[in-house]
Amino acid sequence: MKVREIAELVGGEVSGDGDLEIESVADIRTATAGELAFYQGSDEVPPTSASCVIISSKLDSTHPCLIKAGNPKHAFAIAGKHLHKASLGKGRHETALIAAGADVQASFIGAHVTVGDGSIIGGGTEIGAGVRIGRNVVIGESTLVHPGVVIYDNVKIGAGCILHAGVVLGADGFGFVRGADGVYTKFPQIGTVVIEDDVEIGANTCVDRGALGETRIGKGTKIDNLVQIGHNVQIGKRCVIAAQTGISGSTVIEDDCVIGGQVGFGDHAHVKSGAIIGSQAGVLPGKIVRPGVWWGTPIQPLEEYKRQNAHVKSLERLKEQVKELKRKLDDSPDR
Amino acid sequence: MKVREIAELVGGEVSGDGDLEIESVADIRTATAGELAFYQGSDEVPPTSASCVIISSKLDSTHPCLIKAGNPKHAFAIAGKHLHKASLGKGRHETALIAAGADVQASFIGAHVTVGDGSIIGGGTEIGAGVRIGRNVVIGESTLVHPGVVIYDNVKIGAGCILHAGVVLGADGFGFVRGADGVYTKFPQIGTVVIEDDVEIGANTCVDRGALGETRIGKGTKIDNLVQIGHNVQIGKRCVIAAQTGISGSTVIEDDCVIGGQVGFGDHAHVKSGAIIGSQAGVLPGKIVRPGVWWGTPIQPLEEYKRQNAHVKSLERLKEQVKELKRKLDDSPDR
Amino acid sequence: MKVREIAELVGGEVSGDGDLEIESVADIRTATAGELAFYQGSDEVPPTSASCVIISSKLDSTHPCLIKAGNPKHAFAIAGKHLHKASLGKGRHETALIAAGADVQASFIGAHVTVGDGSIIGGGTEIGAGVRIGRNVVIGESTLVHPGVVIYDNVKIGAGCILHAGVVLGADGFGFVRGADGVYTKFPQIGTVVIEDDVEIGANTCVDRGALGETRIGKGTKIDNLVQIGHNVQIGKRCVIAAQTGISGSTVIEDDCVIGGQVGFGDHAHVKSGAIIGSQAGVLPGKIVRPGVWWGTPIQPLEEYKRQNAHVKSLERLKEQVKELKRKLDDSPDR
Repeated sequence: MKVREIAELVGGEVSGDGDLEIESVADIRTATAGELAFYQGSDEVPPTSASCVIISSKLDSTHPCLIKAGNPKHAFAIAGKHLHKASLGKGRHETALIAAGADVQASFIGAHVTVGDGSIIGGGTEIGAGVRIGRNVVIGESTLVHPGVVIYDNVKIGAGCILHAGVVLGADGFGFVRGADGVYTKFPQIGTVVIEDDVEIGANTCVDRGALGETRIGKGTKIDNLVQIGHNVQIGKRCVIAAQTGISGSTVIEDDCVIGGQVGFGDHAHVKSGAIIGSQAGVLPGKIVRPGVWWGTPIQPLEEYKRQNAHVKSLERLKEQVKELKRKLDDSPDR
Repeated sequence: MKVREIAELVGGEVSGDGDLEIESVADIRTATAGELAFYQGSDEVPPTSASCVIISSKLDSTHPCLIKAGNPKHAFAIAGKHLHKASLGKGRHETALIAAGADVQASFIGAHVTVGDGSIIGGGTEIGAGVRIGRNVVIGESTLVHPGVVIYDNVKIGAGCILHAGVVLGADGFGFVRGADGVYTKFPQIGTVVIEDDVEIGANTCVDRGALGETRIGKGTKIDNLVQIGHNVQIGKRCVIAAQTGISGSTVIEDDCVIGGQVGFGDHAHVKSGAIIGSQAGVLPGKIVRPGVWWGTPIQPLEEYKRQNAHVKSLERLKEQVKELKRKLDDSPDR
Repeated sequence: MKVREIAELVGGEVSGDGDLEIESVADIRTATAGELAFYQGSDEVPPTSASCVIISSKLDSTHPCLIKAGNPKHAFAIAGKHLHKASLGKGRHETALIAAGADVQASFIGAHVTVGDGSIIGGGTEIGAGVRIGRNVVIGESTLVHPGVVIYDNVKIGAGCILHAGVVLGADGFGFVRGADGVYTKFPQIGTVVIEDDVEIGANTCVDRGALGETRIGKGTKIDNLVQIGHNVQIGKRCVIAAQTGISGSTVIEDDCVIGGQVGFGDHAHVKSGAIIGSQAGVLPGKIVRPGVWWGTPIQPLEEYKRQNAHVKSLERLKEQVKELKRKLDDSPDR
């Protein structure tokens, strides 16, 4: 891509030779000729061998080729998306096994893939080697399914999604009813999973099917590795959920929430749109979490958490003060 | 199934037309004709299009078709189990590779399965596509192994189990001995894993083999997704372990325990029968956990945890009280 | 192996018949004829049917065949490593699909394996059934890759490594840039993963590729199951990381650190060589962790953590003391 094409793509302005060819993006410190870097700082661009650097519109530089953009990092990400289109391949491998009743348009089906009866896969979608797709699964267009993913029956996945290796969609939710004899019987786990468009799901993450209804992940939400999403959970649009977080059954997370890593949600919690929950936090069952920044177990507003933490840290001094008061009072001449 | 057959199955009594045909179970709010719902509440059954509703024996309703049972949710679960028998298929796929010395009775072996030498698989068992079964593995009857499961050599699995996608049974335990040069050498991990009957194991959960002995999971225990069970752990019967919990080596959990999600157990802990441990709790190595409800890190009885939490929350007031006392004492006319 | 050969291997001294044949190692309590056990205690070796027992050089025993070594457990581990060489098999299965441009020396390639173009696999390496190896992957000699592992393009793995089932190496790191419209665009995740020699990685653990640079795991480091290692993380040599720990992007862990289970690291933290971090601890982003033993969230030196915990536990008494002081002061005759 030419520098001027990239500038157009990211809504930036070229300063220098717009006809320069860019092959890839790179870190500004290690970039070489043919590479595009970005600089988020507010002073002079550091020395770099990058052919072109994206900088803030407000900034100037002696670098011979610049793209000026409102948000350099965002512009860099968009450029990177176009310069580095991830692709697993083209065509359909002869060892792939596609049920007669499946409708598969995908641009790539890798080796040893199985697709069950009644499943529909959209155009431009790529299915990596060894992926297992059950019956009556729907996958939209231009979705990327990495090797080793397992999708159970009846799951729906939108367009433009990325599922990383080892993802499991639609396994049974964890619900059991205990009989008088102490034996657990599985509560029916016959619902489904709906993944809307542009969702990315990290490696080895699990999304369980609804018990009787559906588990849903909203458009544009990004989920990291090793996350657990329980049955009937509803996650809104444009949420970000970091690694190893676990969300229990029927919890609702509205749009535009940011959830740290290793957070635990009890069942039937309800996180309001825009809330931010810090790593390792614990949300009690049924808890309603208002917008704001939350921390700790059980979660509390970050400011409260910090104040409380400071109080705990000063406990030693408090104890000494009490001891001193006691001494004074005991020494008091009137006693 | 007819309503009367279901009633008989769950030990309930029909009120209405016992010859009605039921095809599936459903949520009472979304159920339609041909579907069976349940109602756990104590007043009138909410409006529903379900053909039949299971309610408490103590309750009455104007709904035209009822099954009255002691525990409606339990009865519903049993009905669901019979109406929705999960099945991956029938027969043996031609791409499955079964070692000459294996004895496989299974009713289904999916595509691209491998079964190692000396392994024995019981009748009625279903093995999903791409499952890897090592050498000398034993799997009982009517067990369901979902796609992508990996079972290492010498592991034993009972009858009536469900292993969800991505489960790994029998990987090496995490044990190393450090030499004088700082280099770690693997302590032998040559034991095995025994999964008793009617155990369910969630997606991407790992159960490591014993170092020299065995890791064992007792009959009827249910384990959620992404759980880690270390070498030589012993889990009793009818335990429930929620997602992302980790159990370190040689820990013992006796029968009928309930363990929340994201709980961490140090090695050689011992949880007595009937204990309940809340989510995100931390159990120190060697800790003996008596029956009761436990919470926090390190775990303490729930009541203590709550009281302590309340004390921490009131620290600000306590500090003010101390300040006030100090002021009073300093102002005291005698000083 | 003969007892004398084992003794030589572990640098120990034989007391008894050095020509005895040993077939396997075993627990001292369950060992039988032909088996080697070890005893770490300081008094008489307990009764055992083991043919030979490794004991401390400082100890004596009436057992007819002993190997005396400086560190009996370490000697036992070395003996076990030689007596129990894990092997998945020999040869190349006919269903394995190896790209024409790949250079594969491996001693075993299992069924349904795929190896992408430009990949190089060293001699003596074993690749289990269904492993997916991308393009331009390098794997050194004598590395053991268990079934179901997925290795993305361009990842480098050293010699003598063990990758357990379900490991995912090189999936995209979790980095997104938010646009003015709230939509997240993936920050380029086009770096790589380098696993040095003698690293062991547990089942279902994920190591993400660097965003623009590399994610690196140093020689001899051992990682347990279900661990998450984010993009651009640098882990030194001879570290031990227990199960379910999560390490956020760009964090550095220097050599010889020991990390417990379920620990969470914020991004850009820096753990100095030799630090020990207890289970479930939380390390804030950017935190520098000096050598020593650390605990809690946010982490603090173990001794501080314990003292603070004791203070919290005694809060009830402190409150009573304050109440008592208040009462005394109010009762004071001068007021």
